[in-house]
Amino acid sequence: MAKKTSSQSQTKVEPRGRNLEETRRTILQATFFEVLSSSFQGISIDAIVAKTPYTKGALFHQFPTKLDLGYALVEEVIAPSIITRWIDPIRVFQNPLEGILHQLQILIGNEDLEILKLGCPLNNLVQEMSPVDSGFHKRLAAALDLWIEQMDGELQRGQMMGFVKKDISTRDAATFIVMAHEGFYGTIKGLRDKRVFDSLYGALRSYLQNLATDPSSLS
Amino acid sequence: MAKKTSSQSQTKVEPRGRNLEETRRTILQATFFEVLSSSFQGISIDAIVAKTPYTKGALFHQFPTKLDLGYALVEEVIAPSIITRWIDPIRVFQNPLEGILHQLQILIGNEDLEILKLGCPLNNLVQEMSPVDSGFHKRLAAALDLWIEQMDGELQRGQMMGFVKKDISTRDAATFIVMAHEGFYGTIKGLRDKRVFDSLYGALRSYLQNLATDPSSLS
Repeated sequence: MAKKTSSQSQTKVEPRGRNLEETRRTILQATFFEVLSSSFQGISIDAIVAKTPYTKGALFHQFPTKLDLGYALVEEVIAPSIITRWIDPIRVFQNPLEGILHQLQILIGNEDLEILKLGCPLNNLVQEMSPVDSGFHKRLAAALDLWIEQMDGELQRGQMMGFVKKDISTRDAATFIVMAHEGFYGTIKGLRDKRVFDSLYGALRSYLQNLATDPSSLS
Repeated sequence: MAKKTSSQSQTKVEPRGRNLEETRRTILQATFFEVLSSSFQGISIDAIVAKTPYTKGALFHQFPTKLDLGYALVEEVIAPSIITRWIDPIRVFQNPLEGILHQLQILIGNEDLEILKLGCPLNNLVQEMSPVDSGFHKRLAAALDLWIEQMDGELQRGQMMGFVKKDISTRDAATFIVMAHEGFYGTIKGLRDKRVFDSLYGALRSYLQNLATDPSSLS
């Protein structure tokens, strides 16, 4: 076993200088997929190293412990991907309520069940690590807060542009919409049945229509 | 270690005859609390036995493997408790929509954060075990289906009694409401903040008002 690792590392690279940032990104991407297909507590550093072109030393240089790697996964991969997957695309739509429904259709409705049955990377870590490690809890709660805050901002923009009713609490609605995203993932993972997406989508649309000044714009 | 177990077992009981059913219930209750405060994969049979007055032999007599114990936990504790906690109490209300809000307030809104931060027993097992064991998946999906089906029945009763609009899909609404229950637990667990309950409750009430023939009955 030790011999194999040692012979592997001869063909592996020790990154230097400006390559450090790329190394970090590559290691974190490999960690992301390992964690998604198993769990954080279930993964090994060796399995991650095996999925990168780098040595174990290069990994430890940047992430002295497995927890450091987990924390960086939340802060540098998961939190930013909330913005690029679930917030930025909504900004393309004049009416943010239309954008929310569009992204749900694209990212969950049109996704393969093989991927969906793994669940949401953020939600999985919340369920697994939030109760057992306070450092994880703090960073996962910050990621959820960020999502809610940005969604709130989009609903406020919708209010200013006249698409969203003025008398609703955008904070309450944003919290509920983010909860629903995690709920979509959790329920599809639990039932392992894509048809449930249509039920949930129809019901969420009716909730969003209730927030809209012109409900027919979401039909 | 072996000595300790052996001396413990001298004071422990070997159940017989009609006590078998009570033994089973006691063991499953102990399992429930162990799993809730850690996880299924994280618990040991020894820790469960230590929380009961019975011997390890008595446990193995009824549950030959840890998986048998886990499956029985879902079928004999978790699924029935969905009915007694979330469905039966709704039946007390003429208007099921009022009953749904009342139970959320009682069972989540008025619950201690120390309990809530452990999450929902069903949701935790779905997240942890559904992707890794097909026997768990099948039983957990059946429990979720049961909850949705019974909630659907309550909404149909609401339609017949004139409280729920006739032109809505009760199945879609029931799926969404069950998803929201799991989402309430998951979000409060993630943020570890009880104030989020009020946001989610307010938004779910507005969704339910949208299903009601008389929205003011839910204000």
